[in-house]
Amino acid sequence: MPNPTAAMLVIGDEILSGRTRDANMHHLAGELSRVGIDLKEARVVSDDPDAIVGAVNALRGAFGHVFTSGGIGPTHDDITADCIAAAFDAHIDVRADARTILQTHYDARGIEMNEARLRMARIPDGAVLIDNPVSAAPGFSIENVHVMAGVPSIFQAMVAGLLPTLTGGAPLISQTIRLNRPEGEIAAPLKRLAQAFPDLSIGSYPFTIGGHFGTNIVFRGSDAAMVADAAAQLADICGVAPE
Amino acid sequence: MPNPTAAMLVIGDEILSGRTRDANMHHLAGELSRVGIDLKEARVVSDDPDAIVGAVNALRGAFGHVFTSGGIGPTHDDITADCIAAAFDAHIDVRADARTILQTHYDARGIEMNEARLRMARIPDGAVLIDNPVSAAPGFSIENVHVMAGVPSIFQAMVAGLLPTLTGGAPLISQTIRLNRPEGEIAAPLKRLAQAFPDLSIGSYPFTIGGHFGTNIVFRGSDAAMVADAAAQLADICGVAPE
Repeated sequence: MPNPTAAMLVIGDEILSGRTRDANMHHLAGELSRVGIDLKEARVVSDDPDAIVGAVNALRGAFGHVFTSGGIGPTHDDITADCIAAAFDAHIDVRADARTILQTHYDARGIEMNEARLRMARIPDGAVLIDNPVSAAPGFSIENVHVMAGVPSIFQAMVAGLLPTLTGGAPLISQTIRLNRPEGEIAAPLKRLAQAFPDLSIGSYPFTIGGHFGTNIVFRGSDAAMVADAAAQLADICGVAPE
Repeated sequence: MPNPTAAMLVIGDEILSGRTRDANMHHLAGELSRVGIDLKEARVVSDDPDAIVGAVNALRGAFGHVFTSGGIGPTHDDITADCIAAAFDAHIDVRADARTILQTHYDARGIEMNEARLRMARIPDGAVLIDNPVSAAPGFSIENVHVMAGVPSIFQAMVAGLLPTLTGGAPLISQTIRLNRPEGEIAAPLKRLAQAFPDLSIGSYPFTIGGHFGTNIVFRGSDAAMVADAAAQLADICGVAPE
């Protein structure tokens, strides 16, 4: 049987203007190669509804999967979710499941929900949420189109969670430990954990908030007890509570 | 008057497989921003004739300019020139002007012309050659489609020569000095030359050949005498002959 095919759609004026260099295409290309999905085309389009809808419809008809990156944040120019809904002629609004995920995340951090953040809970009817272990705001899959964030650390975390569901592997359980320290300080214990749990995938996703460095460590595996064990060991080493 | 629009087409399996990270899109995006051409879309397609021809025809109809990178080298999978000819329904064969450029370049270096290298002189009828100051094998423009090499140093040198011809500026004269030493050794005299000739663009394009580092220095400007003067000064400093 030939490999499944895929296309990528990068959405964002900042790539086309040269302000930002896209990093997600190269990452996705490597990950798809690894799991045996053939990336056949990639496109970059601007934050323009006609361009996005046109590209989504062209690519989803021509390829087995379409992966998008960008345009699902809180600002007015984040129009990807609405454009995907338009491409599928699907209804879109703030969805309760996505809103709950955001509210829980913000409540735990003392962050206020506002209208802009609520935009990130706009999800088309019928879409399946994609886990965002870094900053909570979910991506989503609708039919063969997988909509993910443009920020590289979030994109990478979403891809890591999504791909096993597309390749027929066992569903993955994930657990995240949030650390208020930079990656460099925890590299050594992480390496020991990775050696102790060879069946788990352990991802490290750095972030900055208010000028401080932090890292989300995401444990993924098909054995829930093993995931919980590894996460608890890291939490114990670092003196934090597992989420 | 609105800015002219453009699209880019990156051609190459090696980008889509994740083996190589494309660098040309980001470079072109920045250069087009600088000269006021709006890059509206970029695509990456594989070394597949239908994909290349389809993308070229879609993009050249939708945008003012199309810039391509990749697939004009000497090997069997370098099919871009033939695909562009097919897209325009133009005749293509080894063209005398391109062959002369290659032959002169190889003769000066004691390199043998062979069938593979001769492929790089295949140019569609009616196309205008794009100068390649790094390794001679030319790109070409046919109507609004500009076909350039994928190797980043060559792509950048071609873009530098091409863009002024698209933006209505005075035509640029270029002269190249080939040095058998790495960029790092000549940075200081180059900086002094750049200061002494503020009206010239001086580009440095490193290469390796047979395990040795070399650098092509390209002087560009609208005043031929000034270009020749600057090139002669560098040749004198470095003890080489201007080409």
